[in-house]
Amino acid sequence: MPKINGERLLADLRRMAEFGRYQTGVHRPHLSPQDVESRHWLAGRMKEAGLEPVIDGIGNVIGRSGKSGPKLLMGSHTDTQPRGGWLDGVMGVIYGIEVARALAEDPKTAHLAVDVASWADEEGHWGGMLGSKSFIGRLVEADIDKARHREDGSKLRDALQGAGLAGKKREELKDGEYRCYLEAHIEQGGLLEASGKRIGVVTAIVGIYQYRLTFTGIQNHAGTTPMPIRKDAGAAMMRLYNEVMEIFPALAGPRTVWTVGRMSIEPGAPAIIPGKAEMILQFRDADRAVLEALDKKTFEIAAAHNAGGSCAVECVNLGRTMPAPMDERLQEAFDEAAEHHAPGAHMRMPSGAGHDAQILAQRLPAAMMFVPSIGGVSHHFTENTADADIVLGCQVFADAVVRILSRN
Amino acid sequence: MPKINGERLLADLRRMAEFGRYQTGVHRPHLSPQDVESRHWLAGRMKEAGLEPVIDGIGNVIGRSGKSGPKLLMGSHTDTQPRGGWLDGVMGVIYGIEVARALAEDPKTAHLAVDVASWADEEGHWGGMLGSKSFIGRLVEADIDKARHREDGSKLRDALQGAGLAGKKREELKDGEYRCYLEAHIEQGGLLEASGKRIGVVTAIVGIYQYRLTFTGIQNHAGTTPMPIRKDAGAAMMRLYNEVMEIFPALAGPRTVWTVGRMSIEPGAPAIIPGKAEMILQFRDADRAVLEALDKKTFEIAAAHNAGGSCAVECVNLGRTMPAPMDERLQEAFDEAAEHHAPGAHMRMPSGAGHDAQILAQRLPAAMMFVPSIGGVSHHFTENTADADIVLGCQVFADAVVRILSRN
Repeated sequence: MPKINGERLLADLRRMAEFGRYQTGVHRPHLSPQDVESRHWLAGRMKEAGLEPVIDGIGNVIGRSGKSGPKLLMGSHTDTQPRGGWLDGVMGVIYGIEVARALAEDPKTAHLAVDVASWADEEGHWGGMLGSKSFIGRLVEADIDKARHREDGSKLRDALQGAGLAGKKREELKDGEYRCYLEAHIEQGGLLEASGKRIGVVTAIVGIYQYRLTFTGIQNHAGTTPMPIRKDAGAAMMRLYNEVMEIFPALAGPRTVWTVGRMSIEPGAPAIIPGKAEMILQFRDADRAVLEALDKKTFEIAAAHNAGGSCAVECVNLGRTMPAPMDERLQEAFDEAAEHHAPGAHMRMPSGAGHDAQILAQRLPAAMMFVPSIGGVSHHFTENTADADIVLGCQVFADAVVRILSRN
Repeated sequence: MPKINGERLLADLRRMAEFGRYQTGVHRPHLSPQDVESRHWLAGRMKEAGLEPVIDGIGNVIGRSGKSGPKLLMGSHTDTQPRGGWLDGVMGVIYGIEVARALAEDPKTAHLAVDVASWADEEGHWGGMLGSKSFIGRLVEADIDKARHREDGSKLRDALQGAGLAGKKREELKDGEYRCYLEAHIEQGGLLEASGKRIGVVTAIVGIYQYRLTFTGIQNHAGTTPMPIRKDAGAAMMRLYNEVMEIFPALAGPRTVWTVGRMSIEPGAPAIIPGKAEMILQFRDADRAVLEALDKKTFEIAAAHNAGGSCAVECVNLGRTMPAPMDERLQEAFDEAAEHHAPGAHMRMPSGAGHDAQILAQRLPAAMMFVPSIGGVSHHFTENTADADIVLGCQVFADAVVRILSRN
């Protein structure tokens, strides 16, 4: 079995964290100057690992092996959340490079063919998973024409031009090119830590359904409008929210999550009864039947409030991402590799967060592996994972790669 | 009895609406250029009415009668809400000027002494009721030093300088100067209209208690944080809000009102569990015992949530304005005058909104009279009152003034 080099792996991760360092984390949105710089550094590291790198027309960095025989693709992303963590995404990319190096250094595995990718814009500053979508052929030029930065509204076309990528070809997956796609990632939750495990083998990436609920009442004076005749949009929103919280548990699975992360009332003055209110509701599960049941119930709750309440409620679905089950035989390879290096310290679990693997899974057998997040912290510059877990994870990953490529 | 001139009254109101016209309403915050201009015009109208006007060091316009004998003070305000109505405040000031004119024109009442005031900043762009507070001696120079515009943060001192009022004396009430203070105002609610009445005699101005409730949870990823271990500050706020809505009715009086007009959650992203939430709760009633019971209950609810919930709740009182009962004998004068001019079309009612009369009531017997607001609309440019109601109200007001000044 190939032996990964833990020091080299950690050194590469620490070097990447210099591009856009923010406190103990990193601020490196896709196509920011730090992101572009890091992609060129990454291409250089791929070259040194014996891969032929290309930075394509959307910003994907893909390092290709020149070897023949069955091949697999490893990857993740190197763009980050605003003021995010130093491992979210980039760990999976550096794992790929380290695995390519380790395979090449071991005479027994030097013939194995692996490619490595850093997918563009996984974190969605311009749209979300643009790089992996582009690679599987689900991103058209018109999408790029339309794309604007979610914070400053600038054009993706201009940013690509600024990065020297305008007019460059976008790399695309060819049928039969790869046996599968594998991705490693930090868990971004606290389940492994709470369970005392060091490796998570992902069963499925959850689907995400999201809704905007808009409440229309009548704005009025908070002192002179008697309670019985009020049409308080804020009160209507609160009532519906609490009904969701009361009704959802009966329909949810053991790992379903639902969240209202954004809400607002207008005009937002202490002495004015809100005339308008809005909230964004989302829920996630690996089971499509659960998602469909909650979808139906959400519209039913809104309809009941419309019929019986003092304010009009409009419920609009903003998106339905389907759950992506991971390939069972690939999961078994991760189980076996983990059992070999960390007996009893691995578990199967769904991914509550979205990942490029859900995009690749539309065209290839795909699987994912998690390492623990300290305190379950994620999307924050304090995000971290123990060095020993990072190194162990890479060794398990390398082992699984060999098992998969050695199968007949 | 003196006969007011309805055409002259309406013409003055329409002229005032030209200063800062906004659609069918007016935008005239205190010390805006339009406000300053209107105060000079107002002073001129007072002069023509036989009063000696002064614009004082806070912006109050006070027109004084030179006549001897028992004297009363009439007033309201001429500053407006942002993009507010054309009658909110100014109607009561023009009533005062019209009553002074009508009294002077009738030989039987020409000897009666009335003063008229337009109080500065009733709408609170710099603090709230600054003019009437200044007049009763409850505003010190340090308050003015500190005062900033609530929207642009500019200094009140600079605005007074710009208006040519820096260094001017602030007029102050002298003990024994007036028999009482009378104020007319639009209702700003829909009770008169719903009751088919044309005159409201105010029994009390409600007290207002206001609280900031801050919820502290733990911000986390909405996909990877299981429901049982979440500390969702938004969910905690919603739960407490609904408890308030369920519990308050049992403690409230028939006209108590309570409102959450402002709320927010942080960071406000659809895929992030809110780590912080905040809402402003206020309630109003004319009965101090009701206010005290709701105050106690608010802190009890917060304490119970603190003890039993997943998030910390901090409850801070932001202010307690005491109810201001209106003088009973003055109310009787309004009742009698209203019964004379509009038999059966008047009623007693509390004021759910705050008014300068609650400030003056700290030093003088005070009373207020309302005319109907069409559709109950207020603090909006579409606010209006039927011309006939405006004219009737002024006649009733004049009649009440004579009754009060003619008493032994």
